[in-house]
Amino acid sequence: MDQDVGFIAAVEEAKQGYAEGGVPIGACLVSKDGKILGRGHNMRVQKGSPVLHAEMSALENSGRLPASAYEGATMYTTLSPCDMCTGACILYKVKRVVIGENHNFVGGEELLKNRGKEVVVVDNQECKDLMAKFIKEKPKLWNEDISV
Amino acid sequence: MDQDVGFIAAVEEAKQGYAEGGVPIGACLVSKDGKILGRGHNMRVQKGSPVLHAEMSALENSGRLPASAYEGATMYTTLSPCDMCTGACILYKVKRVVIGENHNFVGGEELLKNRGKEVVVVDNQECKDLMAKFIKEKPKLWNEDISV
Repeated sequence: MDQDVGFIAAVEEAKQGYAEGGVPIGACLVSKDGKILGRGHNMRVQKGSPVLHAEMSALENSGRLPASAYEGATMYTTLSPCDMCTGACILYKVKRVVIGENHNFVGGEELLKNRGKEVVVVDNQECKDLMAKFIKEKPKLWNEDISV
Repeated sequence: MDQDVGFIAAVEEAKQGYAEGGVPIGACLVSKDGKILGRGHNMRVQKGSPVLHAEMSALENSGRLPASAYEGATMYTTLSPCDMCTGACILYKVKRVVIGENHNFVGGEELLKNRGKEVVVVDNQECKDLMAKFIKEKPKLWNEDISV
């Protein structure tokens, strides 16, 4: 799973977010036939955006698509998705959500499962380390983003 | 409730969306002391955006705020919120969600209640009529937006 094109892209996005001084969470939406539909990272700092979390950026960067485009799709994300991103995955009926790690935050995994999504937690060390480093460095920004 | 500044703004936004040829759903986020934090409407057509539903636009237009800004806030929306917008209201811990109507679509009202939100359905005739007219005129666009 760590070698999936979508997962690799999500981690790249998270690193880019970190390099930009932002919240280092990345995501990538991949169609059922393995094509990247969109990828992105959290844009709270970069765009002053409260809605462009990583998963939302990946959806936004996928553009306006018919429902059929999301059928069987997988959302890869470096961190367990918050309630908003969970809801977005449910709205667009992605089939599977692959999560880099849920040590630093646990989001809507149970709701995703209850709504029929396949949830895979990769427990990737690189994701855990990057997020832990960020939270230690910028706790105020992290709390703001996750609305604590 | 129909006379609240937030509700009036949400309806204005919905009408503006209709005038622009878009999905005519509007929203407005109001702080606990009655100040409009942000207002907006669905931007699927106007920006090719799958994430900027009305409530998301209102949040986005509110800008980057600390969690305290959302405390006791009310999200006004002309239509029952979809799963994504429901999740966003939960993430940002708004206190109350005021819904223009839920005849044309029923979204995450039960989840909002289960997560402690006050949910008020105004059952406003103007909201019902505008949405019904739009769905009749552009069923394909509506289905695309709600991912049917």
